[in-house]
Parts: sequence; structure tokens; C-alpha cells
Amino acid sequence: MLCLKVASDAAWVQKASVDLDSVLVDHAHCEMKAASNALSLAARHPHSFALVRALTDLAREEIEHFQRVAGFLERRGLRLGPPPVDAYAAELRKALADLPRDPTIPPIVDRLLSAALIEARSCERFKILLGVVTDPELHAFYTELFAAEARHYQILVDLAAEVAGGSVKERLDMVAEREARIVVRLAALEARATIHG
Amino acid sequence: MLCLKVASDAAWVQKASVDLDSVLVDHAHCEMKAASNALSLAARHPHSFALVRALTDLAREEIEHFQRVAGFLERRGLRLGPPPVDAYAAELRKALADLPRDPTIPPIVDRLLSAALIEARSCERFKILLGVVTDPELHAFYTELFAAEARHYQILVDLAAEVAGGSVKERLDMVAEREARIVVRLAALEARATIHG
Repeated sequence: MLCLKVASDAAWVQKASVDLDSVLVDHAHCEMKAASNALSLAARHPHSFALVRALTDLAREEIEHFQRVAGFLERRGLRLGPPPVDAYAAELRKALADLPRDPTIPPIVDRLLSAALIEARSCERFKILLGVVTDPELHAFYTELFAAEARHYQILVDLAAEVAGGSVKERLDMVAEREARIVVRLAALEARATIHG
Repeated sequence: MLCLKVASDAAWVQKASVDLDSVLVDHAHCEMKAASNALSLAARHPHSFALVRALTDLAREEIEHFQRVAGFLERRGLRLGPPPVDAYAAELRKALADLPRDPTIPPIVDRLLSAALIEARSCERFKILLGVVTDPELHAFYTELFAAEARHYQILVDLAAEVAGGSVKERLDMVAEREARIVVRLAALEARATIHG
């Protein structure tokens, strides 16, 4: 599946499938964080109008997704609540800081690749959720999101390659290795009904 | 003009009218900051779906405005560049922290009112710019923005009243007083071709 080095653990599938409400709440926060992150990347890399345009397009789409997830929550009588602790994102940020430095690779490339990995993991998990969700409206939404996350993954990898001025395959592999380790480590701690953790 | 306690200084009008390019660059960053701020307010106040929906709608619109300003920059061969120091926003944040505490008013009310003030100030300045801009495309854009900022001002004040559970007129007056002092102080330091500073 895309660039991922490890599949989600069966315990996660089990946990998520019996608590789709919690998955939805976590998902809403993920969309919001993805939007904020895209905006922050755009603001920190204002030198290319093409990059800024692509990232702000992404932010608009993530906000729209957030609003649709919020609609599901509201119709189901669920509360959004404050953002839960996101161990996955925090560990990924730490892992990025620990990557071996390459003077030819600007820091934004790693941030774009890490955002791409997050999209890839969402994509993998929506694919799995499609096998357990029976509500037709939610099934249709996840089908659409599965495709959207795969597209976002590709956009972010392409942007990273553009900024790096060449292939980022090796660096992507490196980030994907770290992401896989995090997913395995978090699954060993406790399976949670979240999109990533 | 709306709730503002002081009009923009003539020196600002003079400075801005001879350097519309700098105004455009600053404006792009203002739209981006407004979008980020709306998202951050939504994430920090997830208890009301109506509030979250209104703030994320606002964020989407600010991103769209940003993209249109970026289009003007690109067509004029201007660079976006890193965000300039925003003394106005920084001073406003400081002024909020110094407001007398009122236990009946949650902190988000002040943040909403301060965002409303920023919209009001933008609105006032677009009105002024309409008198000096001759480019028809930019004139049409500013006309539209003038109306949008007035609408955003009202949305934010209404949201503040909703969260506060009653009129926020007095508190708005208080924030407007502080905003006016900041505008006067910054104008006395140096007139700059920016949207707010």
C-alpha cells in the first residue's frame, strides 16, 4: 500500500471496528490538523507560488473533509471534544528531527514527506475500515476519502521532489521506515480506535 | 466605521497609496494568518458544532482570499516572501492579555472580539484604498473584500455574543479602545504600507 513498510496491526482493526464513533471523533481532529499543517507549510515556504497554491488547495480540502466528519458526529449525537493526545504525530515529529541531516535536502522536504506518510497511513486505514463499515453513507464517505488520501500522498511526494529538485525516493524510504517503527511500537503499547495511533 | 474608535492616519493613506505592491504582499500574509487563527479558534472551542462550522467556513474563505491575493502578486511579478513582523497583531495579543479579567467571559470571547477588530480595521482600510486604487481588477477585488471583512466582523461579534450568552458590547468597546491606541501608537512610530500596522 503506497510507501508503507508495515500494515496496521490486527488488534487495531478489531478495536476500531467495534468503536467507529471514536474513530470518527479522532478523524475529525486529524482533518483539522492536516489543514493547519498544510497552511503552516505554505506560510513557511512562500518562495514558490505553485507550492503555496498546492498546499492551500490541500488545506481547503482538509477543512471541507473536517466539516463533513463534523456533520457525521452531529447527526450521531457525538461530541467533538478537545483534540486527543496524538502520540503518532508527536513521535513522527521526533523521528524527523533525528533523521540524518543531508545538506542538499531542505527541512521542508522532510515535513512534506512526513505529511505524505500520514496521508498514506490514513489511506490504508480507510481501506480497512471499508471492510467493516456497514452504514451506507459512511461507507460512501470513506470510499471517497480513501481516494483523496492517496491523491494527497502523491501531491505531497511530488511537492517534496519539486523542492528537492530531484527524486526523494531514498528519503521517503527513510521516513517510511521510521513511521513503520512508530506504528509497531504504538500497537504494542495499546490498540486505540484512532486513525493513526 | 463599525466599532473602530479611531480612523487610520493620513500618513498611512499616503504611504499605502504610493506602495500598493507592499500592501498586497502584506495583505496576502494577513489572509493566511486570519485562516490559521480561525482554525486554531475552532480547534480550541470544539464544544459547539455551530461555532466550529462558522469558524471553519471563515477559514475556507480566508484561504480563498489568500489564493486570490497570491494571484495578483504572481501576475505583477511580486514575491510573497516570509511573513513580515506584524507589530499590530502582536500588540493586540498583548493588550488582550492585559484586559481586566471578567470571570463571566471565557477567554475565547476576547479572541473572537480581537479577530472582529482586525476585520473591522481591514474593512476601513479597504474602503480607503478604494479611493486610491485605479487598476479595475484590484478595485473590484477590494470592493468585494470591503464587504467580506464587514461580514466577517459581524460573524465574529455574533459568535462572541453566543459564547458569552449575551451582549458583548461593553467588552467589544474595551477591545476597540485598546486597538485604537495601538493604531495611533504604531502610526506615530512609522507609517508602513501594510493592511494593519
